[in-house]
Amino acid sequence: MSGLLSPVSAGTPVEALVSDEAWLQAMLDAEAALARAQARLGTVPEQAAAVITRCAQAALFDVRALALAARRTANPVVGLVAALTARVAELDPASAEYVHRGSTSQDILDTGAMLVARRAVEAIRADLDRAAAGLAGHAAAHRDTPVAGRTLALQAVPTTFGLKAAGWRSLVLDADTRLARLAGGLPVSLGGAAGTLAGYLAHAERGASYADDLATAFAAETGLARQALPWHALRTPVADLGSALAFTTGALGKFAVDVLTLARTEVGEVVEPDGGASSAMPHKRNPVLATLVRTAALQVPALATGLTQSLLSEDERSGGAWHAEWLLLREALRLTGGAAHTAAQLAEGLVPQPERMRQNLERTGGQVVSERLAAVLTPRLGRAAAREALDEATATGRPLAEHPLLREHLAAEELEALCDPAGYLGAAGHLVDRALRHTS
Amino acid sequence: MSGLLSPVSAGTPVEALVSDEAWLQAMLDAEAALARAQARLGTVPEQAAAVITRCAQAALFDVRALALAARRTANPVVGLVAALTARVAELDPASAEYVHRGSTSQDILDTGAMLVARRAVEAIRADLDRAAAGLAGHAAAHRDTPVAGRTLALQAVPTTFGLKAAGWRSLVLDADTRLARLAGGLPVSLGGAAGTLAGYLAHAERGASYADDLATAFAAETGLARQALPWHALRTPVADLGSALAFTTGALGKFAVDVLTLARTEVGEVVEPDGGASSAMPHKRNPVLATLVRTAALQVPALATGLTQSLLSEDERSGGAWHAEWLLLREALRLTGGAAHTAAQLAEGLVPQPERMRQNLERTGGQVVSERLAAVLTPRLGRAAAREALDEATATGRPLAEHPLLREHLAAEELEALCDPAGYLGAAGHLVDRALRHTS
Amino acid sequence: MSGLLSPVSAGTPVEALVSDEAWLQAMLDAEAALARAQARLGTVPEQAAAVITRCAQAALFDVRALALAARRTANPVVGLVAALTARVAELDPASAEYVHRGSTSQDILDTGAMLVARRAVEAIRADLDRAAAGLAGHAAAHRDTPVAGRTLALQAVPTTFGLKAAGWRSLVLDADTRLARLAGGLPVSLGGAAGTLAGYLAHAERGASYADDLATAFAAETGLARQALPWHALRTPVADLGSALAFTTGALGKFAVDVLTLARTEVGEVVEPDGGASSAMPHKRNPVLATLVRTAALQVPALATGLTQSLLSEDERSGGAWHAEWLLLREALRLTGGAAHTAAQLAEGLVPQPERMRQNLERTGGQVVSERLAAVLTPRLGRAAAREALDEATATGRPLAEHPLLREHLAAEELEALCDPAGYLGAAGHLVDRALRHTS
Amino acid sequence: MSGLLSPVSAGTPVEALVSDEAWLQAMLDAEAALARAQARLGTVPEQAAAVITRCAQAALFDVRALALAARRTANPVVGLVAALTARVAELDPASAEYVHRGSTSQDILDTGAMLVARRAVEAIRADLDRAAAGLAGHAAAHRDTPVAGRTLALQAVPTTFGLKAAGWRSLVLDADTRLARLAGGLPVSLGGAAGTLAGYLAHAERGASYADDLATAFAAETGLARQALPWHALRTPVADLGSALAFTTGALGKFAVDVLTLARTEVGEVVEPDGGASSAMPHKRNPVLATLVRTAALQVPALATGLTQSLLSEDERSGGAWHAEWLLLREALRLTGGAAHTAAQLAEGLVPQPERMRQNLERTGGQVVSERLAAVLTPRLGRAAAREALDEATATGRPLAEHPLLREHLAAEELEALCDPAGYLGAAGHLVDRALRHTS
Repeated sequence: MSGLLSPVSAGTPVEALVSDEAWLQAMLDAEAALARAQARLGTVPEQAAAVITRCAQAALFDVRALALAARRTANPVVGLVAALTARVAELDPASAEYVHRGSTSQDILDTGAMLVARRAVEAIRADLDRAAAGLAGHAAAHRDTPVAGRTLALQAVPTTFGLKAAGWRSLVLDADTRLARLAGGLPVSLGGAAGTLAGYLAHAERGASYADDLATAFAAETGLARQALPWHALRTPVADLGSALAFTTGALGKFAVDVLTLARTEVGEVVEPDGGASSAMPHKRNPVLATLVRTAALQVPALATGLTQSLLSEDERSGGAWHAEWLLLREALRLTGGAAHTAAQLAEGLVPQPERMRQNLERTGGQVVSERLAAVLTPRLGRAAAREALDEATATGRPLAEHPLLREHLAAEELEALCDPAGYLGAAGHLVDRALRHTS
Repeated sequence: MSGLLSPVSAGTPVEALVSDEAWLQAMLDAEAALARAQARLGTVPEQAAAVITRCAQAALFDVRALALAARRTANPVVGLVAALTARVAELDPASAEYVHRGSTSQDILDTGAMLVARRAVEAIRADLDRAAAGLAGHAAAHRDTPVAGRTLALQAVPTTFGLKAAGWRSLVLDADTRLARLAGGLPVSLGGAAGTLAGYLAHAERGASYADDLATAFAAETGLARQALPWHALRTPVADLGSALAFTTGALGKFAVDVLTLARTEVGEVVEPDGGASSAMPHKRNPVLATLVRTAALQVPALATGLTQSLLSEDERSGGAWHAEWLLLREALRLTGGAAHTAAQLAEGLVPQPERMRQNLERTGGQVVSERLAAVLTPRLGRAAAREALDEATATGRPLAEHPLLREHLAAEELEALCDPAGYLGAAGHLVDRALRHTS
Repeated sequence: MSGLLSPVSAGTPVEALVSDEAWLQAMLDAEAALARAQARLGTVPEQAAAVITRCAQAALFDVRALALAARRTANPVVGLVAALTARVAELDPASAEYVHRGSTSQDILDTGAMLVARRAVEAIRADLDRAAAGLAGHAAAHRDTPVAGRTLALQAVPTTFGLKAAGWRSLVLDADTRLARLAGGLPVSLGGAAGTLAGYLAHAERGASYADDLATAFAAETGLARQALPWHALRTPVADLGSALAFTTGALGKFAVDVLTLARTEVGEVVEPDGGASSAMPHKRNPVLATLVRTAALQVPALATGLTQSLLSEDERSGGAWHAEWLLLREALRLTGGAAHTAAQLAEGLVPQPERMRQNLERTGGQVVSERLAAVLTPRLGRAAAREALDEATATGRPLAEHPLLREHLAAEELEALCDPAGYLGAAGHLVDRALRHTS
Repeated sequence: MSGLLSPVSAGTPVEALVSDEAWLQAMLDAEAALARAQARLGTVPEQAAAVITRCAQAALFDVRALALAARRTANPVVGLVAALTARVAELDPASAEYVHRGSTSQDILDTGAMLVARRAVEAIRADLDRAAAGLAGHAAAHRDTPVAGRTLALQAVPTTFGLKAAGWRSLVLDADTRLARLAGGLPVSLGGAAGTLAGYLAHAERGASYADDLATAFAAETGLARQALPWHALRTPVADLGSALAFTTGALGKFAVDVLTLARTEVGEVVEPDGGASSAMPHKRNPVLATLVRTAALQVPALATGLTQSLLSEDERSGGAWHAEWLLLREALRLTGGAAHTAAQLAEGLVPQPERMRQNLERTGGQVVSERLAAVLTPRLGRAAAREALDEATATGRPLAEHPLLREHLAAEELEALCDPAGYLGAAGHLVDRALRHTS
């Protein structure tokens, strides 16, 4: 895949981590780790485990041939086991008997998928860290920079750009928390043909305790967590990945849609670090990074829905629900990784425009503080009369600071002060301080 | 709503907890709690808070009139505030000035939504507990009852009905863990017009520390958690609810699709507690409960996708993304609650049919243990020859226990023992024991 | 349902058409039509059909009791048949034997659902007509009103407000075309217990031709189309409804998001007919109608996904996939109907602000026509040099009409003319004319 | 992309038609067609159009470099235009000025996408034809082969395998109808920078009629349809593709889930042409093709939801909604194409097992015709008494044909005949005949 159709991830670190070759390597890692785990317990010779490990290199296999062969069995592991066995047999025929011993396709594919996911999630989290740090910088630098707070598309009351940035950062931290919680628990998959580990036990002398020991050893060899139960048809890890990735792109997407809004020609309150060129219009400096991040936020939730549905896996292994996970998971990881990387660039390079923020706040002639005027006038005139006066005053469009109707009730100086947006920022600065003390 | 179109939840406990009247009451609870919180801090008279609390009863308001009025403002709070103010004014005109003081529609609606969600989640968890207990009973009782393990629709190797039940239970516990994690943190919403709390502060003498104190007091009065930041446009709680509810129905849906499969006429390994009648066919005892649970599992993930998308909320309050949450959240809570209640009934009443399980295992003439025979023959014949012998033997369809090809290599007694499904259950019993030691 | 949580549809015409009572009536209409169809063919006495028709009034039944009873059978028809039979027996015991004769729950529920859908779609189309007419008015009135064309959030080149309105209208017409195509073909459902009509034939003397005649008569009595095949598990009509409704809200949603963008305080190019009040801010006139329409556009595609999945109905009737359709279909119809009604109000009342459009076009100092300048300069300077000159000129931020760099190559008068946005509208007016000649 | 994670499409015809290279070629086809269309109208020299056409070969470009470059502009066209211009300049510097003349990225990418879609849809339709033909064969061959009709997982009344096959075929034809309707109308995209075609007109002497002529010429050169209006932000074609592809995989998915059900070990009514091997279990012949088809049916509706949402494109070109379409559309086309090809193989090779169908019908001891017995007994005993007798008889589990309770009311011979499933097939055969007369 060249990445032509998904520029959000083209060339970003996650791309290589989730490629077909990376999946192949992860499945080979699972086969090798399984052999070594069995060797630890004496059910596979050390020599065989060593040879299998030596052969478990993706570069030795033809990924396209494996993909085509997968049509015959609905998964790529059957073909991979045959190819790996042949490769091992070339080096050491005696070891070939021990490839995939007692195992089943799903143990290898699921364990491989968890390895891919863990590697990708680590890369995503590194980029979320960068994004959070970049946003923390904006939050601190613009703790007290007034900007219009907008609701239902209109200026409502003032807020600060720092509080906006702190909000974006808090979502990034929320995403990171969810990914961290998940990543630590991504488990190996070890069930054998139908989740009883009978195939593994058939090669051991001991009884059920061997199952425990094998799971522990397999986890140790892969670096993944132990499983609670064999999960061929209990798809908690996959559903959790779907949720966490959809959350992450949603969190980054909030940042992106705000940047797109603030970058509008008529708003102009932020500029991207390095605006994109247009093929036709020399003057345009497009908000390209925000656009790219948003693309992931529009796609990953849809993909994640499919992953949630994998929970509806009938029997001990579904005929289809399992197989439908793979592409969705890969694309969700890839797009989320691309979004995180792109958001980090955006957060680090975003250029706020405080002067435009100020100008925009002045556009409404003080209406943006009408709530404040209402609060001051209400005790003096009563709620209804205060509201009426303000309705009348704002209807004229005339700047409130000099409006005769309000001047009846407020001294010029007081009115002017009340109409200064910078004087009506509520607890914004305080909220920024508190938010910045919080780390994921 | 009569529930005519969603029998999964009709008449179940959650239904009343998420009705329009319940939402109205929760919003009134939020208004009253806000007034009391302000009274704690001295910005609203105790008397006003008491009167507001007294008036905050859903039965005093016309929910249909409020719904119709909501079209003028895109949310029902504006109308509710007017109606509540009028009601308070009747009792005590002076208190009317303090209704919704410094507040904004979203603070009330979001806080109300969290109250509704917390109440519904509690009911859901109670039913998940019942479901888990019912399934634990089956797992213990059938720890060693052999049943066919099935993959890609076919019998693969034996497992036990206890392990199936333990697996269903583990998903129920996973769901409960996710809901518990969530429920404890559902926060109040307190931001004022654009998330700075400026409106609240306008009525206080103190500065930003008042914002903290008000949030603490509001949380105490509602029983909800404090918020990290005002979250009008940072929709973590809503996205988390969507994920957890979709997970829950998916987890219950796995149970349901398995019951539907096992209940098939030709399989017959479980019978529902109280089969549903057919309008046309006297003999049918439909798996009605499983059908109902599955309906929720097919709907809630779709609704949850919409909730995840609420993260893409532009500005300080979205023009639409926020408003699109309400119905989706209510329906997701309702369907999940109905599914949990129905699954509890199903788990408690399900009647396993061990005799049919045994008969089904015998249908393949021992093929269901072909993996085991392969493991035994491989060291004797080599992997390839063993596989070949078994391929040939299974192709004939003749019972393996008496197959001449296998009798060449195995004594009659040994072969018969090897072909007994009950002798090839792997670690199933052990896994059940471990799973049952785990509680959510 | 009070509509409290979905103001987009509260009180709109579609609301009553899809209520639980309306579904109940539609199912009763199906029962009555079936009896009359059988009476036409002589397999039910005329008298019985008349009595059944007389009793088939929703007001005679307790919808809540039917909803609760539906939990026992997973659908509300079994209970309804019993209640209807009892009611008929009261009037005429002999007729009671003919209620639901040879039929099955799904025939009644599906036919009822199609009746509900057809009635709702008619109401939706009426509102789409109004919306299209309103938009046609804007397109004609503002055929030549310049407004900034915007891409990736930035001003790109000029377009006209008329062309924007013509585009919105074309989507409305596309939606109407899809609904019209669908509505005419919504079929009766007639299959009997498992799609062979055996139950109906058991009461007829004739063979299979009776099946045809009954389908024809049933279609005539309901006003619905004939079915191609019994479709209990062939869910084309439901999937088609899902697609068409999702398309319709998407089409209206495009109009809504554009209105929300154009209504922004800093853009101000449209004003809603009757802006919504804010509970806190006297000055705000929120774009309430656009907000409401957008809520439907965010919800219905998610619901429609669930409807598409109904195609995956196993067997002759699914245990769950069928039952999961009902609520999703009702909500999709209701939200779409609300969106259409609201969009009609918005289209009819929207107030364009040509003066603000003009001001906004001037904000970029002519950059909005940089493409045009490039086209003029390229033949004179070559593509690369022309681009370089424009890059340099636009980078300064100085109005292009008086930029020395451009004045080197263009006479003052020519440059000024080239920089007039109204002179660079391309084929906009022509496209409006063509679009308005097109009717759905 | 090797296809490792989506065996449903690996190596199928559609795979190459939607690859990154195919998209690149389609975009180059669009550039070349545009130049030739302009040459037809005299705004580009014939020579330039010829040179551009000669250079428009994907093999001449580095698709990975274009993908990486796309990150700078959020789309791959800007880089492609630069690379194509350079290539043309090498051959003929004078022609280079005419590359992408007056155009914009979206015109090229959208037109390219429609070319890719049309080519893929043609391949899909060819495979749907094969699938329909295969299913027609089964429907005809098994017009009168009795099989259990099943509802809510249980045997209900008999039907025929022919009617099942006719139903699957009718869905395939429905899908084909939807794709055909769509494919004929897939339009070119021609709008210029913001949908007014101003850029194109800037190079023409004529006015708006040139816009019409250019669109006509562009359509002729590409073989696509003319557009109604420039559709940069009016995404009807994309939403329609999403719907039609989701419908198609849903339709094929119904066939697949039925095959999976019928292939169950305990049911055994169909066998796949060439069962898949298991890595562990020698005896298994997995329903691999049905599994693969189902994977597509579980993924494409989720992807299609994302495509429907593209309708919510703000402004004249969305910053993100447009860009989010590409990958989703490609994957939807690829998976649908794979599903169609796989379903064709499945339909052609499926082996029905009439003997197993008969055995299964006998399993219920005649209960599968209880509806028929009810119809016969009702006029003799009254509805209530007939129902009671049957409830009692079926509750015993004893074969109804010899049940004393029924023998009281029916002669032995009559009862036996009534209990023969083959005698209660309703209009099944007739429905098959009618269905087979229908062609898409």
